[in-house]
Amino acid sequence: MPLVRISVKEGMPDAYRAAIGEGVHRAMVETINVPAKDRFQIITEHRAGDLVYDPTYLDIARSDNFVAIQITLNLGRTVELKKALYARIAALLAEAPGIRPEDVLVSLVEVPKENWSFGKGIAQYA
Amino acid sequence: MPLVRISVKEGMPDAYRAAIGEGVHRAMVETINVPAKDRFQIITEHRAGDLVYDPTYLDIARSDNFVAIQITLNLGRTVELKKALYARIAALLAEAPGIRPEDVLVSLVEVPKENWSFGKGIAQYA
Amino acid sequence: MPLVRISVKEGMPDAYRAAIGEGVHRAMVETINVPAKDRFQIITEHRAGDLVYDPTYLDIARSDNFVAIQITLNLGRTVELKKALYARIAALLAEAPGIRPEDVLVSLVEVPKENWSFGKGIAQYA
Repeated sequence: MPLVRISVKEGMPDAYRAAIGEGVHRAMVETINVPAKDRFQIITEHRAGDLVYDPTYLDIARSDNFVAIQITLNLGRTVELKKALYARIAALLAEAPGIRPEDVLVSLVEVPKENWSFGKGIAQYA
Repeated sequence: MPLVRISVKEGMPDAYRAAIGEGVHRAMVETINVPAKDRFQIITEHRAGDLVYDPTYLDIARSDNFVAIQITLNLGRTVELKKALYARIAALLAEAPGIRPEDVLVSLVEVPKENWSFGKGIAQYA
Repeated sequence: MPLVRISVKEGMPDAYRAAIGEGVHRAMVETINVPAKDRFQIITEHRAGDLVYDPTYLDIARSDNFVAIQITLNLGRTVELKKALYARIAALLAEAPGIRPEDVLVSLVEVPKENWSFGKGIAQYA
C-alpha cells in the first residue's frame, strides 16, 4: 500500500536510483510489515537548485547527495516502528548505493485503508 | 479543491496525458461532488525504471502502462463515495486513453478545508 | 520540518524558481514559526498542458504563471496562522519573482511530529 516518492539529484546512473528504490522498499518490508510485492515508487531527478536542503539543520551535515523520501502509507504504525523504518532506510542506503545517513530525509503521510485502489477500480483494503 | 498528481510513463503523445487528466477530473465531478471548474492537476512523465510498480500485487496483472494518481482533497467523503470514485476513474480511463483498469492506482490524501488557498493569499474554504 | 513541493511552468530562468523557493520559505519562517534553517524543497517544471489549472474557479483569474505549492508540515497550526501563511506567501511571491496573487495555489498536508527523519535514520522530533 505505500506509494513512495523519491527525489534525487540528476545525472547519476540508473543503477543509483534503482538501488535507492530497492533499499527503501526492503526497509519497509523488514520493519513495518509491508508485503514484498507491495512496491510502488515514483523516482524523480532534480537539478541542484531545484532539490533544496539546508546543509546543517539540526546539526546534520548534508551534502549534494541529499535524498528526499516521502512515503504515503496506512495509518497505524507505532512510533517505535517508524523509528525502526528510518534507521533501516538509512542503513540500507548507506550499503547501496552508498549514501551517507546524514543525506537521507524521510517524511511519512498516513491515510486510512479505504484511501487506496490498487487497480480494477476497487478499494482492495476497504 | 483537489490537487491531483498523475504519474505516467514517458514518451506518450500529449493527448494521452490530457485524456487521463480529463478522465480523472470528470470522475471526481460525477462521483464525489467536485465542482466542474475545480480542476488543478500536475502530470509528470517518468522513465520505465523510475515509475515502479509490482506486476502482480494483489493478483492484479499490471503492465508498463501503469498510472499512479494521488489526489489531495477535503476530508469527509464516505467509503462508498471513495469506492464510486475509484470505479469511475478506472472506467473513464479505460474509455480514453484506453488504459486497462488493472493499471490504475489511486491514492487519496485528505485534509481539512482550511488547508487550501486557491489564490489571492486567501483561505477560500475556511 | 516542512517538505515543500513547488510546481511551476517550464522555461523560466533559474532565478525565477529560486525566488519562489525563497519567498515560500521566508513566509513560513515569518508566519508559522518554521526555523530559518529548516528548508527542504523540491521544485519542478512542467509543460503548459501538464500543469493544469482552471482559469476562473472561485472567480479568481489565473494565468499561465500559475504555481502550485504543497507543503507537508507538522500538525498544530491554527486557522489564523494558516491564513497568515497564505497571505504572506502571496505577498512575497508578488514582490519576487513577481507572480500575481491570483496565480498562487497553496495546499497543506499535516502530519504528526514522529513522521519525520531529517537524517542519520533518527526521528528527530519524536
